[in-house]
Amino acid sequence: MRKLKIDELNRLSISDFKEQEKVPIIVVLENIRSLNNVGTIFRTCDAYKVEAIYLVGITGKPPHREIQKSALGATESVTWKYFDDTQKAIEELKQNGYFVCAVEQAEGSVSITEIHEQEFNRLALIFGNEVSGVEQGTINVCDVCVELPQYGTKHSLNVAVCAGITIWESFKLLSR
Amino acid sequence: MRKLKIDELNRLSISDFKEQEKVPIIVVLENIRSLNNVGTIFRTCDAYKVEAIYLVGITGKPPHREIQKSALGATESVTWKYFDDTQKAIEELKQNGYFVCAVEQAEGSVSITEIHEQEFNRLALIFGNEVSGVEQGTINVCDVCVELPQYGTKHSLNVAVCAGITIWESFKLLSR
Repeated sequence: MRKLKIDELNRLSISDFKEQEKVPIIVVLENIRSLNNVGTIFRTCDAYKVEAIYLVGITGKPPHREIQKSALGATESVTWKYFDDTQKAIEELKQNGYFVCAVEQAEGSVSITEIHEQEFNRLALIFGNEVSGVEQGTINVCDVCVELPQYGTKHSLNVAVCAGITIWESFKLLSR
Repeated sequence: MRKLKIDELNRLSISDFKEQEKVPIIVVLENIRSLNNVGTIFRTCDAYKVEAIYLVGITGKPPHREIQKSALGATESVTWKYFDDTQKAIEELKQNGYFVCAVEQAEGSVSITEIHEQEFNRLALIFGNEVSGVEQGTINVCDVCVELPQYGTKHSLNVAVCAGITIWESFKLLSR
């Protein structure tokens, strides 16, 4: 099995990426502290044709050297927008017909493996701060809480890993 | 939907984790440069009851302050072992009946969505260096190459995100 060279990966140009049809997912990053996590999530959103990233509150914005180090250019391909407040972002998402999910461990949260039982055509996924998670005030106005089942001693995946798995599962669901 | 408190998450103690049955997956980290990535992958392996992590070559080993910052204690729960050379790790894995997968974009690689079509009871997943990927010499002795489909401009997920999605998919397959 010969490892593929970089020019054999069928990578899209930035302009082809901009023009291609996206998967109707918007990722909302609420008060993400680590610029490394922000950049890493940009790269995942590039890979899975996410429509846009909404950066909220203290979450860092491009252009930023520390975001660029992990985004590796994905800040140029993926559309993003800044909001000072999550409530305003959710208001816009609901007006545009998005089903709004907080990704958080909460009472009555739905497992990511059961998300297909919810009804939606467009999905917004909200990820919260590395320490405090999605704010309770944000959860209160979401349509649902979705969580990744976890079986270990921590119950706390890194937020970029949690976003990776959640975006991947949502991509599979919505790109059918 | 009330956010759960930390004592409501049913987190296992380290000793209960050690005693619980694991999912027959061993994660091999070949020449991973970033200690942050190593620690993040420890945390994912804790969440999905991975049997062990094999750290190979230049990959950092616990105890290390930089690994601890992202592992948040998962180096205490997840079993790990160091090898200076991937060939030795693979030899041991094959002797113990593991089906050995390089996670890499290669000619004839199988999508993670089709991995269930392979036959195995125990799975080893090899992740390579952030820049150069899994070594060709390693790929040559693996049973299969598995890859995550990607649709953007980069075709290069962060290794901890790639490991997260691959471990999650393998967990779902082998914990049934």
